[in-house]
Amino acid sequence: MSMDFSSKLLEQAVNEFAKLPGIGGKTALRLVLHLLRQDAQDVEHFGNTILKLKKEIKHCNICHNLSDTEVCHICSNPRRDPSTVCIVENVRDVMSIENTQQYHGVYHVLGGIISPMEGIGPSDLTINTLLDKITSPSSEIKEIILALPTTMEGDTTNFYIFRKLSDINIKITTIARGIAIGDDLEYADELTLGRSIINRTEFETTLKN
Amino acid sequence: MSMDFSSKLLEQAVNEFAKLPGIGGKTALRLVLHLLRQDAQDVEHFGNTILKLKKEIKHCNICHNLSDTEVCHICSNPRRDPSTVCIVENVRDVMSIENTQQYHGVYHVLGGIISPMEGIGPSDLTINTLLDKITSPSSEIKEIILALPTTMEGDTTNFYIFRKLSDINIKITTIARGIAIGDDLEYADELTLGRSIINRTEFETTLKN
Repeated sequence: MSMDFSSKLLEQAVNEFAKLPGIGGKTALRLVLHLLRQDAQDVEHFGNTILKLKKEIKHCNICHNLSDTEVCHICSNPRRDPSTVCIVENVRDVMSIENTQQYHGVYHVLGGIISPMEGIGPSDLTINTLLDKITSPSSEIKEIILALPTTMEGDTTNFYIFRKLSDINIKITTIARGIAIGDDLEYADELTLGRSIINRTEFETTLKN
Repeated sequence: MSMDFSSKLLEQAVNEFAKLPGIGGKTALRLVLHLLRQDAQDVEHFGNTILKLKKEIKHCNICHNLSDTEVCHICSNPRRDPSTVCIVENVRDVMSIENTQQYHGVYHVLGGIISPMEGIGPSDLTINTLLDKITSPSSEIKEIILALPTTMEGDTTNFYIFRKLSDINIKITTIARGIAIGDDLEYADELTLGRSIINRTEFETTLKN
């Protein structure tokens, strides 16, 4: 849709919003007109929050998670187990796992996965700093949990890390794949159902949860 | 979804985006993470555009359309006909009509329509300034076109304006309602089809378009 704006300021704001993923021209206009109906101080707060976010946010020096401090609150928490490191693709995956409240180790955020199609190689990710952490003489790391997506890219990245660690005495695990709790077997895909039978767990273990 | 943020800055930015209409928590997070991947100067431009928009944008003194100047570029355009005023609910309706390139008069933006349910009365809208414009001794206005929605609220507003102008010698019209060009008659609602027969136009007129 071409739009005939009565104001350059309006047009610029709509164009800025329309650059965001999943926001088209019409939605952008709706959002901007909404902002114009809000109190001046609320809109100022919105704009300033964006400016502050980009200027002040950091990546944790240890795990690369987004953080307000040089070392994030997970890595610096003495109650977290630094011997277990969960490897995830991005910040959102950390949030998802944290939400379960079932994980007490630490993380390593790769910042993506290896994708030859998109031109993303190991050097574009934080794989080297992961290897440095593990091979450092002061390393306490005993287990890494691979929690990458079950896609070709995820498998490639898993295998790359696995191969790089083949000489090192460290436990490498992956998160369990299986039928989601509450799901009917008849609607599950064959691959997942097959995996859930191969990786079956003792009935007692299940009862404890 | 409750979210466990690793950063207060991130959380604040997500909360700000989630205040926008139609943007939930997950979408807000996606938008903020997108911004974090952009160049610092692009994000700064985004934030500053929002701040500038709210501080500098104006409403046209004459028609109340959004404008960068005291009088908008439509009202100040000598090629527009000031004797015809199209009454619309909001700024978006001005843009829709301007896009057709078929209208050469001016506008009057009400800023809403009368809605007792939402507590919006005539005094919340720019109806008084419309009446002042029309009744002013220097007024050139000969026709007003009502282009409000065909809802109960739209009809109420139309009738309110119509009644207020009953003593004044001015032509009052409404935009044509009918079957959309290209639409099949069999799928049209009865009310619209009925109206399109009552308001039928001369075949010659149709040919000219």
